[in-house]
Amino acid sequence: MARWDPGAEERLKRAALELYLERGYDNVTVTHIAERAGLTRRSYFRYFPDKREVLFAGSERLPPALAEAVLTADPNAAPLAAVLDALARVGAQLVEHVGGGAAERRAVIDASPELRERERTKAAAITEAIRDALIQRQVNAATAELVAQLATVACDNAFRRWIGAKGRASFGSCLDAVTGELRAALAGT
Amino acid sequence: MARWDPGAEERLKRAALELYLERGYDNVTVTHIAERAGLTRRSYFRYFPDKREVLFAGSERLPPALAEAVLTADPNAAPLAAVLDALARVGAQLVEHVGGGAAERRAVIDASPELRERERTKAAAITEAIRDALIQRQVNAATAELVAQLATVACDNAFRRWIGAKGRASFGSCLDAVTGELRAALAGT
Repeated sequence: MARWDPGAEERLKRAALELYLERGYDNVTVTHIAERAGLTRRSYFRYFPDKREVLFAGSERLPPALAEAVLTADPNAAPLAAVLDALARVGAQLVEHVGGGAAERRAVIDASPELRERERTKAAAITEAIRDALIQRQVNAATAELVAQLATVACDNAFRRWIGAKGRASFGSCLDAVTGELRAALAGT
Repeated sequence: MARWDPGAEERLKRAALELYLERGYDNVTVTHIAERAGLTRRSYFRYFPDKREVLFAGSERLPPALAEAVLTADPNAAPLAAVLDALARVGAQLVEHVGGGAAERRAVIDASPELRERERTKAAAITEAIRDALIQRQVNAATAELVAQLATVACDNAFRRWIGAKGRASFGSCLDAVTGELRAALAGT
């Protein structure tokens, strides 16, 4: 048995991101990542099932966290208001967690059809969690679907703008800006 | 060489839909579909590259058709207004084309993670085509991305509602209803 190595997971994530940027995602193997992190292939697979998931570590916690946040939002809030409140709370924690590598991670994903596909699957899981939480709040299914998809769009765009702001704007202010822009766009139609 | 068979493609699409509904998508092979349509496997592959694409026939024409419609919309229209106008025009043709099998197709896709993934890839191609057309209309990239994603949400939900209305509502009126609901949801935040 290997000794417990508290920094191993972080080193693997960092090594993967570096290699994907240097060589392109398609040209990097799990063996390369493990070597760069000073670990074995076998150690790699204790943390991640494949070479994609190292970029999405922790993302499985996002749908249940958002569902919980929607369910605990002000019971009198309208559906979209409840979801935006939930996104602001969970998103603020998320950007703490992703920290410095967010822009590099974004560039790697944007360059790979395979990774973009995986990211869309993750986004769909977020939409479903929000929709189901809204249905539990007695919102009808068609409205819950629409609001959940709208919220996912707002979240994705807010996150991209937060990355682009490089620390000069909070996630909450990016989410407010996106929401305001969506409101203005629809008001003009 | 097989003789030209003008009904073959339609028969294959119909046979695939029937079999996917009867047995479940995962339990049907290309051979089953071809047999049901009175054709050979070899004939099948003249029309479709795999067992997924038979459900998405013609979808490759949608992104360029939408891009063209966005580019030819009123030059003075705001970004979202131009895109909604394009969606209404192209969507009206689309629902003519899909005809009677739309609800069955929806049920088959919703039941299969693999098909939902393929559908998300198709939706992403629509978003990209709209975004790029807006950028050609001198819309800035961040707004073009946001409006294109919003329009894709509106289109997806309008199409689902059009299916649910079973001929009692036009695609245009479903799109108007969805747009109105999005406007009302954002006005309340």
